[in-house]
Amino acid sequence: MRRSEVRELLKLTERPGVISFGGGLPAPELFPLARCEEACTKVLREHGAAALQYSATEGYRPLREMIARHTRRYGLTVDADNILITSGSQQALDLIGKVFVNPGDHILVERPTYLGALQAWTSYQAQYLTVGMDDEGARVDEMETELRAGPKFIYALPNFQNPTGVTLSLARRRRIVELADHYGVPILEDDPYGQLRYEGDHLAPLVEIDAAYRGGDGPYSGNVIYLSTFSKTLAPGLRLGWIVAPADVIDRLVQAKQGTDLHTSTFTQYVAYEVASGGFLDQHVRTIRAAYRERRDAMIAAMEESFPRGVTWTRPHGGLFLWVRFPEGLDAADVLKETLKVDVAFLVGSAFFVDGSGRNTARFNFSNASVERIHEGVRKIGAVLQRMRPAPSGEPVTVLTRR
Amino acid sequence: MRRSEVRELLKLTERPGVISFGGGLPAPELFPLARCEEACTKVLREHGAAALQYSATEGYRPLREMIARHTRRYGLTVDADNILITSGSQQALDLIGKVFVNPGDHILVERPTYLGALQAWTSYQAQYLTVGMDDEGARVDEMETELRAGPKFIYALPNFQNPTGVTLSLARRRRIVELADHYGVPILEDDPYGQLRYEGDHLAPLVEIDAAYRGGDGPYSGNVIYLSTFSKTLAPGLRLGWIVAPADVIDRLVQAKQGTDLHTSTFTQYVAYEVASGGFLDQHVRTIRAAYRERRDAMIAAMEESFPRGVTWTRPHGGLFLWVRFPEGLDAADVLKETLKVDVAFLVGSAFFVDGSGRNTARFNFSNASVERIHEGVRKIGAVLQRMRPAPSGEPVTVLTRR
Repeated sequence: MRRSEVRELLKLTERPGVISFGGGLPAPELFPLARCEEACTKVLREHGAAALQYSATEGYRPLREMIARHTRRYGLTVDADNILITSGSQQALDLIGKVFVNPGDHILVERPTYLGALQAWTSYQAQYLTVGMDDEGARVDEMETELRAGPKFIYALPNFQNPTGVTLSLARRRRIVELADHYGVPILEDDPYGQLRYEGDHLAPLVEIDAAYRGGDGPYSGNVIYLSTFSKTLAPGLRLGWIVAPADVIDRLVQAKQGTDLHTSTFTQYVAYEVASGGFLDQHVRTIRAAYRERRDAMIAAMEESFPRGVTWTRPHGGLFLWVRFPEGLDAADVLKETLKVDVAFLVGSAFFVDGSGRNTARFNFSNASVERIHEGVRKIGAVLQRMRPAPSGEPVTVLTRR
Repeated sequence: MRRSEVRELLKLTERPGVISFGGGLPAPELFPLARCEEACTKVLREHGAAALQYSATEGYRPLREMIARHTRRYGLTVDADNILITSGSQQALDLIGKVFVNPGDHILVERPTYLGALQAWTSYQAQYLTVGMDDEGARVDEMETELRAGPKFIYALPNFQNPTGVTLSLARRRRIVELADHYGVPILEDDPYGQLRYEGDHLAPLVEIDAAYRGGDGPYSGNVIYLSTFSKTLAPGLRLGWIVAPADVIDRLVQAKQGTDLHTSTFTQYVAYEVASGGFLDQHVRTIRAAYRERRDAMIAAMEESFPRGVTWTRPHGGLFLWVRFPEGLDAADVLKETLKVDVAFLVGSAFFVDGSGRNTARFNFSNASVERIHEGVRKIGAVLQRMRPAPSGEPVTVLTRR
C-alpha cells in the first residue's frame, strides 16, 4: 500500500492562501449548521442514553428504514434488511473487498476510476481489468472481452463519475446489466453524487435496471450492490454511507463489519436521521445543487476564457468534478509544480489509472471554491499553461520564461 | 468468519424485561448528556465548517495532543505523532491485523481472551498460541515456550481483563516486557478499562515498563503498541478509540486506515475533545468509578449469598466484568438456557477460548444494571444453579424439578 495521493494533496491544499481544485470537499458554507444543532439537542434530550450507547452493527433502524423508503422512490423493492450503514462509502468499499476479494482476484474497473476504491482493494491484493471511458461513460464495447477473463465484480460509477464527471448513458446502463447477468458477474454501483444533477434527466441506476430486468415482486435479490453516502448531501465529517444489497449479501457484510468497528457511530446516525427527517434533506439538496451548478458553470466559463488551445475538459451534468486533458507530452505533475508557485492546485490524473497512464490528465473540483476563487484560480492555471509547451517524447517539459 | 456471539447476545438482551449481565455496556444513566449537548453546540457554532468536513486520517490534532498529554502522565514520552484516532478500539484491532497479520501467522493470546480481537484477526487468517490465566493474570511461566514458536505479537489485556476481570501483576508485567524483548516479539497492550480501578494501586502499563526498560530520552520507539478508548469513560456510541505507538508504526497504520474509512468522524472527535477538556473527563471518571465499584460489590455479595458451593468467581479490582466458573461438567450454555426462562442472561465463556474449552465458564457484566437488578438477577441465577447438577462426562446435564 502507498499513502493515498488524495490525502497527501489534502495536506498541501491546507497551506493558507492556496486555491485548491484538488480535493473532493463539499462547500462547508452550505453545511446546515443550525439544523444540526437542533438535531443534536433533540437527540441528546430525547434519546441520549440510546444515542451514546453501543448499537447494532446493521445501523440505526429508523435511518435504515428512511434510506429504504428513499431507495424505493427509484422503483426498487427494498426494506431495512437490504440496508447496511457504513462509516462513509470508503468503509463500504473496504467491506466489499474484505468479503469478496481473494488475493489475485480481478476487478473490472473504469479507466480512470476512483482512487479510494483502488486503495481499498489493493490492500486485499486485488488485480484489475479495465475498460476505457468516452463521453457516454464506460466503453461497453470493450467490456465483453474483459468479462470473459472472469472478474470478481464490475465496479461502476454511472453518475458524474469520479474523476471524469462523465455520466453513463441509459443505453449503456442497460447493456452492462445484461452483460453482467450473462457472464454471471456482479456489479458494484457507486453513486455518491446521484442527487447532485444540474442538468438533464435522472437516469435509472443500474440496481433499478437490474431489478426491472429480472422482474418479480419480492425484495431485491439481484446482481447489483449499490453504494451511496450522506457525505455530499449532508456532511462528510459525520462519516455516514450505506450499502443497498440483497439481504444475504448484507448479512455477510454485517459479519465483516462487526470485526472492523462493531458499528458506525450511534450518535451521528441519530443526528443524521433527525437532520434528514421531515423532508429537510431533499430541500437542502436543492440549495446545494443550485450553488454547485453555478460553480461548475463558472469553472467551464473560466477555462473557455483562459486555457490555451489543445487543452480539453469534460462538461459534467452533475457531481463535483470535471476532467482536464492537457496536450499529449505535457505532464500534469509538471503543470501542478508550476501552478503551486502561484498558489493554485488541482489533482494530477495518473493516480486514477491502474496502468499508470493518463499523465496528461487532471481532476478539477468545483464544489469547494467560490465563483470568484474559481475565476481567479483557473485564470492563473491558464496563464501557466500558456507558458508551457508539451515536451517531445522523452524530453523534460519546456517552461517558457514569462515575458 | 462467524457472526459474533457478543452481538447475537446483544439482540437477546434487548428483549424487554431481561436482566442482562451478558453485554459489555457502560451504564447509560451516567452518560454526561448535558455536557455533550454543550459540546455539540459549541463545536457547531465555533468550528461547524471544520467539524462537519473531511479531515486528516490521523485524527483531530488537539484531541491527539490531549491524549498524548494524558499518556505522558504515566511517564511515557509521546506526542501527537505517536497517536492515531480510531473508530473505536475494535478498529484498532482490525488495523493491527491488516498491517501485521499474514495468513497463517500466529498470535500469542491469553486463554481466555477478548472475543472481538479473535474475530478481527481470524478474518486475516491468524492462528493462535495461548497461555493460561491465574489470579495474577497471564501465566508467564508458560510464555517462553510459546514465544519460541515465533508469534507475530503478544496480545495482552493487563488491567481487569476481558473476560476474566483479572489484573496482571507488576512482577509479571516486567517479565513479559523482558521476554518480548529477548525474543524480539512486539506486544499489543489493550487497555480499555485502565482508568476504572476500584481498589489497589495503579500499575504501570506494559508500554511504560518497556520505555523504562529501554531508557533514552526521545519519543517512544519501543516494542509495545498501546490501545485505549473513550467507550468506557465517555460513551461507546461515539466510536472513538486510539493507538499509541512509535511514529513509524503509526505511519503504517494511518496508510491502512485511509483505505478502510478515510478517517474517524470529525464531528465526534471535536465533541469528545470539548467534553473532555478542562478536566471534565477526569472528574466524570470518578463518578463512574464510584458507581461501578458499588455494582461490583453488589454482584459479589449476591453471588456469595445465592450461588451454590462448587461455583467460583473472580473479584476484579476494576473494569466491567467478573468471571464465573461452574462445576466441571456443568455447561454454561445449559445454565443460560435455564436462566433465560426466568429472564436473566450472562455470556457463556467458551467463545473466549480459541481451543473451544471453558465450557463451564461465564462472563458476568456488572456495569450495566442497577444494584437492585444485580441482586435480583444473581439471585435468580443462583436459584437455577441450585437446581442443576453437573453431568457425568458425556451425559446431558440434569435439571432437578423445583419442589
